Formats: sequence, structure tokens, C-alpha cells
Amino acid sequence: MNNKQLQSLHHVAISVTDISRAIEWYSSRFECELKYQDETWALLKFANIHLALVLPEQHPPHIALVDPNAADYGSLTQHRDGTRSIYIQDSEGNHLEIMQAEVT
Amino acid sequence: MNNKQLQSLHHVAISVTDISRAIEWYSSRFECELKYQDETWALLKFANIHLALVLPEQHPPHIALVDPNAADYGSLTQHRDGTRSIYIQDSEGNHLEIMQAEVT
Repeated sequence: MNNKQLQSLHHVAISVTDISRAIEWYSSRFECELKYQDETWALLKFANIHLALVLPEQHPPHIALVDPNAADYGSLTQHRDGTRSIYIQDSEGNHLEIMQAEVT
Repeated sequence: MNNKQLQSLHHVAISVTDISRAIEWYSSRFECELKYQDETWALLKFANIHLALVLPEQHPPHIALVDPNAADYGSLTQHRDGTRSIYIQDSEGNHLEIMQAEVT
């Protein structure tokens, strides 16, 4: 029996060159909800996770997890939306964002 | 009021060069569960989504959605685990796997 509480991924971010075009592509094909959009990134809500569409010069493609001990990884950066997080790389060079607390 | 049923992402797949090393890296840092492992890929279960660790020569990094109408995108490929899916690209060149039905 395993009572371990699994952690959640908060979002996955993929690179896009045209935010509006990408929103249109996803919204027209899948049931998702546009939560945020500006000229540099957008956030689509799916049932179980958020999909971030990001210009590559803003952030690398990454997956994001919430971890109350995010600061253990280093100094956290405060973002415009109030979240605090740090970007790290896994053993393979993939980018992860460790978020201190989930955005409500 | 919005009663739209949002769709779920089934998994996100990232490229790794060493499957075992990547499993160790994720398992030692995050509460997740190893569901499958062979020499070419592995599947880690998180609370809300699966994270696939894949050798780049097997599959490109991608996100996967379940869509009963997957066949509308083209001819489905049957995989070793019994799933049927098709790989497509979004408007920005990102890879998506459209799965006909979720693996139970």
C-alpha cells in the first residue's frame, strides 16, 4: 500500500513564435480556457494542468512544479504575477521552474 | 457561467540522454511514482499528469492529449502498450501526440 501524496505539475511551457496564432490553434481544437494573454506569453487552462505559450526569448520551454521548499534550490525571483520561483535544470539539461506556491 | 468540460493533457514528454539517471534525479527530488521503464523511455506518474522521459531518437519532446476523434488528424499508429495515437505539429512547430483513448 502506498499512501505517498504525489506532487503536481503546475504548468508546461512551450515555445511559440506568435502568441495569438498559437492561442487560436489550441483554442479551436481543444476544450481549454484562456486565462492570460499579453504580447510575450499566454496561459491556457486545461482540466488538469496549465499550458503556457511563451516567446523563446522570454523563457525556455520548461515544466513547473510547486514546492514549498523552492528556496532550497537558490534565490527566488519575484514575477509580475506575484509568484516566486527559481529556474533549474535537471540532470539532462531540461529546464524546470520550481514555484514556491501555486497561483490561485 | 461556463459549463464547458475542459480537456486534459495525458502526459508531457521531455528528452533525456540517460533514462536511469533522469529517473533518479526526479524520484529523489519530487513525490512521483515510476510506472514504466525500459532502455528507451520511462513514465513517471505525478498527481495530475504523467511525465515521460524519452531518448530523443525515439520521440521528440511533446505534449499528449486524449481525443476520441484522434483519427480525424490522420492514420493512427498502434504502440507497444496498446494505445493508438498520431503525432502532429501545432502552428508553431511544437509536437503533440493525439491519443485516441487514455491508458488505464
